[in-house]
Amino acid sequence: MRYLLTLCTYLFIWSFSGAQEQPNIILFFVDDLGWQDTSEPFWTKTTSFNKTYRTPNMERLADEGMKFTQAYATPVCSPTRVSLLTGMNAARHRVTNWTLHKDKMQPMETGHQTLSFPPWNVNGITPDFDIDHAVYATPFPSLLQEDGYETIHVGKAHFGAIGTPGENPLNLGFDVNIAGHAAGAPKSYLGVQNFGNIPEFEGTPWPVPGLSSYHGQDIFLTEVLTLEAIKAMDHSLEEEKPFFLYMSHYGVHTPIMPDSRFVQHYYDMGMDSTEAMYAALIEGVDKSLGDIMDFVVEREIEEETIIIFMSDNGGLSAVARGGTPHTHNKPLSSGKGSMHEGGIREPMLVKYPGVTVPGSETDAYLIIEDFYPTILEMAGVTDYETIQMVDGESFASWLDGNTPGMQDRPLYWHYPNDWGPTGPGIGASSTIRKGDWKLIYYHDDGRFELFNIEDDIGETTNEALEEQDRTRAMATELGQYLREVRAQMPYHKESGLLVPYPDKVKI
Amino acid sequence: MRYLLTLCTYLFIWSFSGAQEQPNIILFFVDDLGWQDTSEPFWTKTTSFNKTYRTPNMERLADEGMKFTQAYATPVCSPTRVSLLTGMNAARHRVTNWTLHKDKMQPMETGHQTLSFPPWNVNGITPDFDIDHAVYATPFPSLLQEDGYETIHVGKAHFGAIGTPGENPLNLGFDVNIAGHAAGAPKSYLGVQNFGNIPEFEGTPWPVPGLSSYHGQDIFLTEVLTLEAIKAMDHSLEEEKPFFLYMSHYGVHTPIMPDSRFVQHYYDMGMDSTEAMYAALIEGVDKSLGDIMDFVVEREIEEETIIIFMSDNGGLSAVARGGTPHTHNKPLSSGKGSMHEGGIREPMLVKYPGVTVPGSETDAYLIIEDFYPTILEMAGVTDYETIQMVDGESFASWLDGNTPGMQDRPLYWHYPNDWGPTGPGIGASSTIRKGDWKLIYYHDDGRFELFNIEDDIGETTNEALEEQDRTRAMATELGQYLREVRAQMPYHKESGLLVPYPDKVKI
Repeated sequence: MRYLLTLCTYLFIWSFSGAQEQPNIILFFVDDLGWQDTSEPFWTKTTSFNKTYRTPNMERLADEGMKFTQAYATPVCSPTRVSLLTGMNAARHRVTNWTLHKDKMQPMETGHQTLSFPPWNVNGITPDFDIDHAVYATPFPSLLQEDGYETIHVGKAHFGAIGTPGENPLNLGFDVNIAGHAAGAPKSYLGVQNFGNIPEFEGTPWPVPGLSSYHGQDIFLTEVLTLEAIKAMDHSLEEEKPFFLYMSHYGVHTPIMPDSRFVQHYYDMGMDSTEAMYAALIEGVDKSLGDIMDFVVEREIEEETIIIFMSDNGGLSAVARGGTPHTHNKPLSSGKGSMHEGGIREPMLVKYPGVTVPGSETDAYLIIEDFYPTILEMAGVTDYETIQMVDGESFASWLDGNTPGMQDRPLYWHYPNDWGPTGPGIGASSTIRKGDWKLIYYHDDGRFELFNIEDDIGETTNEALEEQDRTRAMATELGQYLREVRAQMPYHKESGLLVPYPDKVKI
Repeated sequence: MRYLLTLCTYLFIWSFSGAQEQPNIILFFVDDLGWQDTSEPFWTKTTSFNKTYRTPNMERLADEGMKFTQAYATPVCSPTRVSLLTGMNAARHRVTNWTLHKDKMQPMETGHQTLSFPPWNVNGITPDFDIDHAVYATPFPSLLQEDGYETIHVGKAHFGAIGTPGENPLNLGFDVNIAGHAAGAPKSYLGVQNFGNIPEFEGTPWPVPGLSSYHGQDIFLTEVLTLEAIKAMDHSLEEEKPFFLYMSHYGVHTPIMPDSRFVQHYYDMGMDSTEAMYAALIEGVDKSLGDIMDFVVEREIEEETIIIFMSDNGGLSAVARGGTPHTHNKPLSSGKGSMHEGGIREPMLVKYPGVTVPGSETDAYLIIEDFYPTILEMAGVTDYETIQMVDGESFASWLDGNTPGMQDRPLYWHYPNDWGPTGPGIGASSTIRKGDWKLIYYHDDGRFELFNIEDDIGETTNEALEEQDRTRAMATELGQYLREVRAQMPYHKESGLLVPYPDKVKI
């Protein structure tokens, strides 16, 4: 009798408030996953990477949903994650580099040879006005929360510096936080190492918080987060609340450690040992995706659950990988930290039951801040107020296949910072993508790179000189945007000259 | 007949549109004039400086108008001048140091030992949105201009960097510009040196522009500017337009050079030669004030002409003066460049015929940005729109003697920069004055100084520790204001730690 009453209540709520009006939303967010780190091809050709990596569940999600081949993020973690949570472009939110220590510039910035970097929002995002050097904004999960959603954070947060409210997802609109804090990497993926919570790492920011019931067990972090995410979703279903799950894996970020469930296969292939462990990290994350998709089917919520798959920046290629640097995202140039496609183009998939056409695909481009209005639109939250000015544009209307053709919307990136490692496209820069073209402006030497991304996906031929008019026009548009948002610029240490916006450089 | 018609027209305009509704306004602005650089006492006691310097025309203006004993500016030129023209506090307009070269930080900033300074608005004020590193604002002269005033700029401008529109007063709402440009000092005061326009100074920014008809003559710059100002006022009277004269003397800024009309008297007193030349510079400026007051009387426009006397920062005391450094503004501590009273307290006089009571005086405090709404109110311009947020508050209602008693309005200063010379109160800092108290927060070492200005005008006793609760309360108010306007802060070069706002410092 009690169950029947519960069922009736559920049906009653469903019929009137509309479960489909408040679908469950799962944002499956992978860390540092490159565009080629999958057996699902995102390029027009199948690459050796697609043949090496094993991601059957990404293939399954692509079969059941829609594939985006030109989805962009920023080249590093925190700027992407803050853009995701605030809907703001990095030039506006000013969390332009990765965050960790409160009120502190990055050491590779203070020690830079030629440039002096502007004080950026080193403290990340803040829900309190009186936290300084942080972007004060309304995170979209708090809007979902207000609208009745259970908002679940699982895994890596990396939204705010240690000792600020933004380090805790519970202060950013999440009802539940599992294992998220200020740090952007786990000290260890291994349960037998307590995910880094061992005496020798005490006092460092990297041990993963919580999860103590798994300490000492022979279990990989990726699996633990999946189990905990499933528990949290189950709780929402019990509470009969629609849920938003931010399934934010620490994988496949460094430290590249062996997931024992999958690594032997790659060792057996004769792969470089680091690359084998990396491939296993990927497969573990893919298994998590499969488990979550299975859960959704088993609980019979498949029709009212949206699944979005995305990564936060390009695959690592400059350091800590096996093989030749900057070959890991081919045909894309470079990798994480770079403004070349290898640093910013992400594997993205969306399954929106009743909306997306199974197996569909688009090469229309979008950028990470677009997720903010899109997710809110999916949740039926359309009438909302935010502290911040939102740059993102919703792509919800594209999901039925009605995608734009030739796009003339400009996308912008701004990184007046230093990341540390070197490589193609890496360094303080500002960038515009428009139509098939991408223009990168390097702050240190005032150099421009212009690529036709459609014809030259590998960014091998700089056409800045040949296409001078186009360079000039794109530099103008980029400069005007940076000026509009009062984007911060570095200055040259020796001369004291401020780096001009790109439209002020003679071309 | 023609003259009669002109007279009738004049009377007609005067009777209907009201000449008193559009009084002439003369802002007599002296450069680097200290609070004691006058024979008119601004303190409760007459000092040896008052007995040494000869400024009979300041005495005359004080007798005919109202004396302000606690009028404040910022410690350096450009921040004051930009606050004057925009009505914004320096923390908001971010022209926090003195301007000269386009897009260029000051060398003493880039070469600083311990602090890295934020990119401030090195280009000064701009009337065009697309000038970067500059504050985009509506200068009050342009509002006067729109309201029918002839707006006359004579002398030192120092509003914008070389090569930007802000370097030219004609782009900032002035109809006439005599001798104003980007530089903040004259290469020479002497006509026989063409005011610096001689081959050996070619290519430097310091030669005074225009004034070529005086080149080669034995005439001092102060006198030339006065003659030209009188010509310009005469022109306005001929045109039958109310005028705003910004009589902005280069004197008494360095180079300290001998005004031959006055210097012998001081030499004869046995003064240090630099101090004798300085005293003569002052007397020359005072003579200019007298000539302008005489002109106003002669032309019978005394009753419809407001005269405001002010200086842009404290008297120089750190370098280039004779005698012991930092003794030149006694009883005030320190001088130009300092947050002690010697750097910011100015001799101020206002004569508003029919409003100010002759010989009246007030110790109510005000700050340079208050001139913006006050001058507009005096001109009857009350319904206006500005690009910027105006911080200043009008003191027009005080002028009939209805001045505030105990004030609880906070005044703010913000200088996240380096000026070069050293001395008491000199260095990157933020400051609040409230009631009798002033709290200074030094960025480099996080030190506080709290002074009771009423009891201890010489700022000899730091009460920050004794008055801990007051220090904390004032630090809170200061921090909140800086946060509200998103004031820029430096960071420590070695640690990368951003200097916190004062309310975040443990007291």
